[in-house]
Amino acid sequence: MKNQDIPYKTYLTEEELPTAWYNLRADMKNKPAPLLNPGTGKPLTAEELTPIFCEELVRQELDNDTAFFPIPDEIRDFYKMYRPSPLVRAYCLEKVLDTPAKIYYKFEGNNTSGSHKLNSAIAQAYYAKQQGLKGVTTETGAGQWGTALSMACAYLGLDLKVFMVKVSYEQKPFRREVMRTYGASVTPSPSMETEVGRRILAEFPGTTGSLGCAISEAVEVAVKNPGYRYVLGSVLNQVLLHQSVIGLEAKAAFDKIGVKPDVIIGCAGGGSNLGGLIAPFMGEKLRGEADYRIIAVEPASCPSFTRGVFAYDFCDTGMICPLAKMYTLGSSFIPSANHAGGLRFHGMSTILSQLYHDGLMEARAVEQTSVFQAAEQFARCEGILPAPESSHAIRAAIDEALRCRETGEEKTILFGLTGTGYFDLTAYQQFNDGLMTDTIPTDEDLARSIAALPKVPEE
Amino acid sequence: MKNQDIPYKTYLTEEELPTAWYNLRADMKNKPAPLLNPGTGKPLTAEELTPIFCEELVRQELDNDTAFFPIPDEIRDFYKMYRPSPLVRAYCLEKVLDTPAKIYYKFEGNNTSGSHKLNSAIAQAYYAKQQGLKGVTTETGAGQWGTALSMACAYLGLDLKVFMVKVSYEQKPFRREVMRTYGASVTPSPSMETEVGRRILAEFPGTTGSLGCAISEAVEVAVKNPGYRYVLGSVLNQVLLHQSVIGLEAKAAFDKIGVKPDVIIGCAGGGSNLGGLIAPFMGEKLRGEADYRIIAVEPASCPSFTRGVFAYDFCDTGMICPLAKMYTLGSSFIPSANHAGGLRFHGMSTILSQLYHDGLMEARAVEQTSVFQAAEQFARCEGILPAPESSHAIRAAIDEALRCRETGEEKTILFGLTGTGYFDLTAYQQFNDGLMTDTIPTDEDLARSIAALPKVPEE
Repeated sequence: MKNQDIPYKTYLTEEELPTAWYNLRADMKNKPAPLLNPGTGKPLTAEELTPIFCEELVRQELDNDTAFFPIPDEIRDFYKMYRPSPLVRAYCLEKVLDTPAKIYYKFEGNNTSGSHKLNSAIAQAYYAKQQGLKGVTTETGAGQWGTALSMACAYLGLDLKVFMVKVSYEQKPFRREVMRTYGASVTPSPSMETEVGRRILAEFPGTTGSLGCAISEAVEVAVKNPGYRYVLGSVLNQVLLHQSVIGLEAKAAFDKIGVKPDVIIGCAGGGSNLGGLIAPFMGEKLRGEADYRIIAVEPASCPSFTRGVFAYDFCDTGMICPLAKMYTLGSSFIPSANHAGGLRFHGMSTILSQLYHDGLMEARAVEQTSVFQAAEQFARCEGILPAPESSHAIRAAIDEALRCRETGEEKTILFGLTGTGYFDLTAYQQFNDGLMTDTIPTDEDLARSIAALPKVPEE
Repeated sequence: MKNQDIPYKTYLTEEELPTAWYNLRADMKNKPAPLLNPGTGKPLTAEELTPIFCEELVRQELDNDTAFFPIPDEIRDFYKMYRPSPLVRAYCLEKVLDTPAKIYYKFEGNNTSGSHKLNSAIAQAYYAKQQGLKGVTTETGAGQWGTALSMACAYLGLDLKVFMVKVSYEQKPFRREVMRTYGASVTPSPSMETEVGRRILAEFPGTTGSLGCAISEAVEVAVKNPGYRYVLGSVLNQVLLHQSVIGLEAKAAFDKIGVKPDVIIGCAGGGSNLGGLIAPFMGEKLRGEADYRIIAVEPASCPSFTRGVFAYDFCDTGMICPLAKMYTLGSSFIPSANHAGGLRFHGMSTILSQLYHDGLMEARAVEQTSVFQAAEQFARCEGILPAPESSHAIRAAIDEALRCRETGEEKTILFGLTGTGYFDLTAYQQFNDGLMTDTIPTDEDLARSIAALPKVPEE
């Protein structure tokens, strides 16, 4: 049944670790639309961005032309602690599904942050350190990004202040403790430490916070304190650039075993994982060198690709951040209960939005209970308890493999297993107890939040 | 500063995965003493053991002579899902400690059970399946063993009933959920499902249970239900045999990079990890082919090697299990609050006890707060949040490396990093909040429990 020539896990050597990140934008004919200043409606300049972001990161953010950015040796050394990550052949899952499809996954969860977020966290922390900064600020919801950044900052001796959405701070004390163990200061948001926090607390005394509010607090602290900048774990071009290490490794590992995937599947929230996973494959596709089916999988409860519009919108619910042109449900959209916290973003990376708009990738939305069914099936035969976010990709990969069983096609499927679910067991408990439900926004809900999109003159 | 020829992580290929477990007993001049029937005081026979344990496992348990047991292909295939595990050069820790020592660790935590326990869980489940059994029963305290066994049973389609000490069942709901996700039935112990459970509940209505009681319940269910047997995650000879895969891989990886360790360090509770890690190295030492310093590290709160006696004792606090000759604090000894649940056993593997008695290894006891200091230091530079158990070995390894800084010696240190601490964050929180204390048994405490040792005629 199995092709014994191909191992369960293909590892690159540490010398084979990529030496440069790949900037997908360089090969895009239609470039992603620029970020706009919400006040003026004009593209944001480097000068406007450097008070908030590190200089080198601003350069990376705005560069649509340079194809490769060398990875500094210090970052490669850090990568060597947990990379190259394995490209795994899912022999056991194939057997359980009785499919002729060949299933592979790129596993990013074998580090203490539990996800791919560390790939960009170390890069952003490194450039902050290089610039001579004292520290950085950020927000975190579910906590994966905050954990990754606290690991990177501890390694480099950089101060870190995390604003954690109050409801998560209280419901996920263990995530908070990991960050504290790595020396980060974690503040429940909204807090009394910022102007915006005090204002919100005065207006809504009992509020449990939101990501939008936490972003506002983190930005305020970064801007007001000399030696600090703000960093972000998804959506931005720079983040997709750093995450390209996932796809570059996957492609090199496939080349090593002489395999070419037919279908590439990734979950999509802000787009950091999907954008990184597909980068070199999409590059080949854009250059006409190869073809791949590429599928973004999003939760039916927050379906920005499949039910959103392609328009300029605020990146945050607080409406203080730049405007980005993306597939969006409107920044006022509030997704219903959904355990995949990392996929609860109303919008999508501008790069991926442009690619989707240009017909270069597909998207599908899946419901929460079917996602957890896939997660359980995967865990039981592949030995890894997946994160709810990653399980969206598992669901779609299993569906593809089952279709192959019907048609007899021997497709090669690659999906991104972005992380582990060790801090998501409340969700698993709800699923195990049969209490999980699916909630999908109504057309009226979406019409309302989309109608509230900011009016921006298109160029 | 660093020797660039040696990678951060050395992996064996899947073909290089050991094909046989190594039975350390074959090379021991003084064999470990046999298990005794507590009723008769005579060595237990295979006939007496097979109603409780699987036949092949009984054979492995009693065989002091066969040096190698082939690993069945099905188990090797399962191992390939998460093995070979990496031998990691701790470059970052060396730099932080500013030591000339070269530090390596064998990392067993990169699987969902979070520890080395899976190595024996899959073997024991496999032999149960081979024997045509329907299922197995076991007990779990902290939950690592129960999780590992639930993964193995899910993979093989074997029924599993876990008795989980009630206080852990209530305090560690997430561990419980992982087991449930893998399809195991998890019952808080004591329960109304067994005779012994009902008896204990009648006598002590509010009890939160103990490992001894959970063992008794698991054994009762195994013996009373046709098609079921009982399995155990540590202490037994068979478990050390399966865990030899850790040491065999470590030795092969060292051979690959042309390095020979001087000091080998492991944490010791029941002895499963330490016995596995040292197996091939101790074998060389026993055969006079090489010499190594081997150090067992135990918690000062439960110091069986350093303050116990070498005598026959019950393996369980309930005093229903066989008698084993081991270093013990007495089966009535109750260790004080100690977050390393996996090291709270009053005794020690008979194999390791004999080796220690014969002067072939050293032991030291370390205090909890210093263990968490080491854990935090390690986490911040090596990027892995270690389990409290494993952190005992980290403490001793750091101490050795600091001594090397004083003496200038370039010793090569290997320690076993048995697992991750993702389910131990209550303990980390206590440490982060400065609320952790050290509690060491008084001489009077130990004298009392040791005086209560069973009287067994020595042969």
